[in-house]
Amino acid sequence: MENGAAERWGFRGNQVLDKAASITVRGVLRKVISNLNPQDRRPVITLGQGDPSAFSCFRTAPEAEEAIVDAVRSREFDSYPPDVGVLPARRAIAEYLSTDLPYKLSPDDVYLTVGCGQAIELIIKVLARPGANILLPRPGYAFYEALAAANHLEFRRFDLLPEKVWEVDLEGVKALADENTVAMVIINPGNPCGNVFTHQHLKKVAETARMLGILVIADEVYGHLVFGSNPFVPMGVFGSITPVITLGSISKRWIVPGWRLGWLVTNDPNGILCKSGIVETIVSYLNICADPTSFIQGAVPQIIEKTTDDFFSRIISLLGKTADICFDGLADIPCITCPHKPEGAMSVMVKLNVSLLEDIDDDMDFCMKLSKEESVIILAGFAVGMKNWLRITFATEPPFLEDGIGRIKAFCQRHAKKQ
Amino acid sequence: MENGAAERWGFRGNQVLDKAASITVRGVLRKVISNLNPQDRRPVITLGQGDPSAFSCFRTAPEAEEAIVDAVRSREFDSYPPDVGVLPARRAIAEYLSTDLPYKLSPDDVYLTVGCGQAIELIIKVLARPGANILLPRPGYAFYEALAAANHLEFRRFDLLPEKVWEVDLEGVKALADENTVAMVIINPGNPCGNVFTHQHLKKVAETARMLGILVIADEVYGHLVFGSNPFVPMGVFGSITPVITLGSISKRWIVPGWRLGWLVTNDPNGILCKSGIVETIVSYLNICADPTSFIQGAVPQIIEKTTDDFFSRIISLLGKTADICFDGLADIPCITCPHKPEGAMSVMVKLNVSLLEDIDDDMDFCMKLSKEESVIILAGFAVGMKNWLRITFATEPPFLEDGIGRIKAFCQRHAKKQ
Repeated sequence: MENGAAERWGFRGNQVLDKAASITVRGVLRKVISNLNPQDRRPVITLGQGDPSAFSCFRTAPEAEEAIVDAVRSREFDSYPPDVGVLPARRAIAEYLSTDLPYKLSPDDVYLTVGCGQAIELIIKVLARPGANILLPRPGYAFYEALAAANHLEFRRFDLLPEKVWEVDLEGVKALADENTVAMVIINPGNPCGNVFTHQHLKKVAETARMLGILVIADEVYGHLVFGSNPFVPMGVFGSITPVITLGSISKRWIVPGWRLGWLVTNDPNGILCKSGIVETIVSYLNICADPTSFIQGAVPQIIEKTTDDFFSRIISLLGKTADICFDGLADIPCITCPHKPEGAMSVMVKLNVSLLEDIDDDMDFCMKLSKEESVIILAGFAVGMKNWLRITFATEPPFLEDGIGRIKAFCQRHAKKQ
Repeated sequence: MENGAAERWGFRGNQVLDKAASITVRGVLRKVISNLNPQDRRPVITLGQGDPSAFSCFRTAPEAEEAIVDAVRSREFDSYPPDVGVLPARRAIAEYLSTDLPYKLSPDDVYLTVGCGQAIELIIKVLARPGANILLPRPGYAFYEALAAANHLEFRRFDLLPEKVWEVDLEGVKALADENTVAMVIINPGNPCGNVFTHQHLKKVAETARMLGILVIADEVYGHLVFGSNPFVPMGVFGSITPVITLGSISKRWIVPGWRLGWLVTNDPNGILCKSGIVETIVSYLNICADPTSFIQGAVPQIIEKTTDDFFSRIISLLGKTADICFDGLADIPCITCPHKPEGAMSVMVKLNVSLLEDIDDDMDFCMKLSKEESVIILAGFAVGMKNWLRITFATEPPFLEDGIGRIKAFCQRHAKKQ
């Protein structure tokens, strides 16, 4: 009780939650955005978040929209949904994901969630028992750290290696794991690095997990969004080596992050997740957590069935084009190094050499000043675990992106150390 | 590790969650439903859950449906929503709720959630700090107990008094509270009792909470659904006596529980929730939890503005009619006593006198056998904290309800002790 007015009251805020939520991508971006200069009349260029849905060129498929309208108008989906999700949606997702697997998923393997975010919350909750720890990638997605902290699940960070196309440092994973390690997380296609793991590397990940007796949580929210030489290989392909829990959603491939429809899928042909009680706890937790909107669940079969390949190809070609613009544009900036051209997802990690800049302390200082001076929003790398790196989201309208990269270039030139 | 197959693996289920989720309304209903006799060709009559949306007479307002279609088609709401909710929806809800208050809510008082369920989760999470306890009503809504247990928040149950129209036993509340008590929950209009608290009683609740230094969580998910002599008085009216957090949603009044749009609202003209850090933690947690679908948020202003009074009156008159059918029908059954005719919400609590029945052990046995023999689903009272009571939901199509009550009567006659 810090002050007189609250002295009589028995309730107060929850510092564990406050601390857990203190570093999230959205939180850091809000801070950067708060530094914008209102006098700057140019449009604000946001290269901070994997959400291009506001741009007309990235609009979702009309078939997806019509599926929602049909589901609402059908009036079949106004009731409470079942905790695990409606059967036709679970079946449609099982079939959709099975296409790329050596075995067939059952609808019972699929649990519907409020976007991929709730799928992350669900698996963290399920695994959080006293003393347990989970291995998370660095750089990664700060939401995992925040949820682990909020749920008292210890996390340890393994490295993704920029010199090896951001592959997992498997020796590092082995060194971090102990008898209380329950799982490791991979994000593929990669957020924030824009890398795409090879079949061979994913197999090694599975074999390492098997050796350590842990499960692999495969965050495939950017699944299928690849435009380089590596095809997208779902981690579930290796579900018979070690149990795999796949997290995904329609948010990215259909460019509808606001619709909030995701899934958690057990890829486990040997039934280990059932025997170990994980499946039971997944069902328990779904019993007491929020459900995705019924009519969006109801629309899923039609969304998956009716969306055309043309839509998917157009989005991928657009992402490939914007990745090129981003990579080529940044190549001209001396203080920024991009270790690899992105081949998937919507963002790239680049290294900032502050020693080449005159008055920039670190990545956050760079982002704050860039926001103020150029009205360009990018994410400071510390928010994803890497100080003095930057995460740049290229998934945006091409002329807008070119303008943004141009302003970053001007900013870097203006702040460059005089020779 | 209970078995050989899982022995090599480091992960296992989470017993705290399994136990927390073991008694929920949905879980108990699933068990009752599992006892249905598939040979019975009569329609199954479900009087178990406050969700009449499947019946054509309870269909939502066409204006609400069109608001959703308009929001989807506008393509303005495909992006990630802000953590706290979109401003136009927060403003519309603030205005909607302010109509019945002696002061005006600000949009900043309103936080959007995935149905009222997530609003409950949110406030439980915020209040759950080591050592704290919360006071919950008995009978009540098992979801509160489950979430408190899952989040290690101790709960203590105060009684609602059937002999006093289910008013809160305020002396009991005083006796239960100690220096670690943070809040008490009331549900008004009442689930499961169908009672409606008077202005006078709510004021006493606020004064008791003020004396104890705790906040009142007012679950008003059934707000405005009243059809007896007491008008609906929102607890927020007494927000200047003690801080009130109101939970609500469009689920019940608009009969769209599957849409999953709810709210948590701070009714606190003295700003105590801000000073005590509660508001900060609400915002922190919203940073890391699932959001309601953007376009449903986008539709809220139109849903509130366009729904006609005719729709609301029709629903209330229908609920009043079904409450009558239920109360009058049950009056004829000797082993069932209904202390009060329901005056609000969608259900009623009735006392079961098992001593008048030949081969029924308790409330759950009654419900299981009723399911098997008559294909009627009702909720055993233990699930809401009262053994040998029953919760009967009357919000259903009248002829369907009459059939159901008739079958309950036949069941009780068949099982009555021979004189």
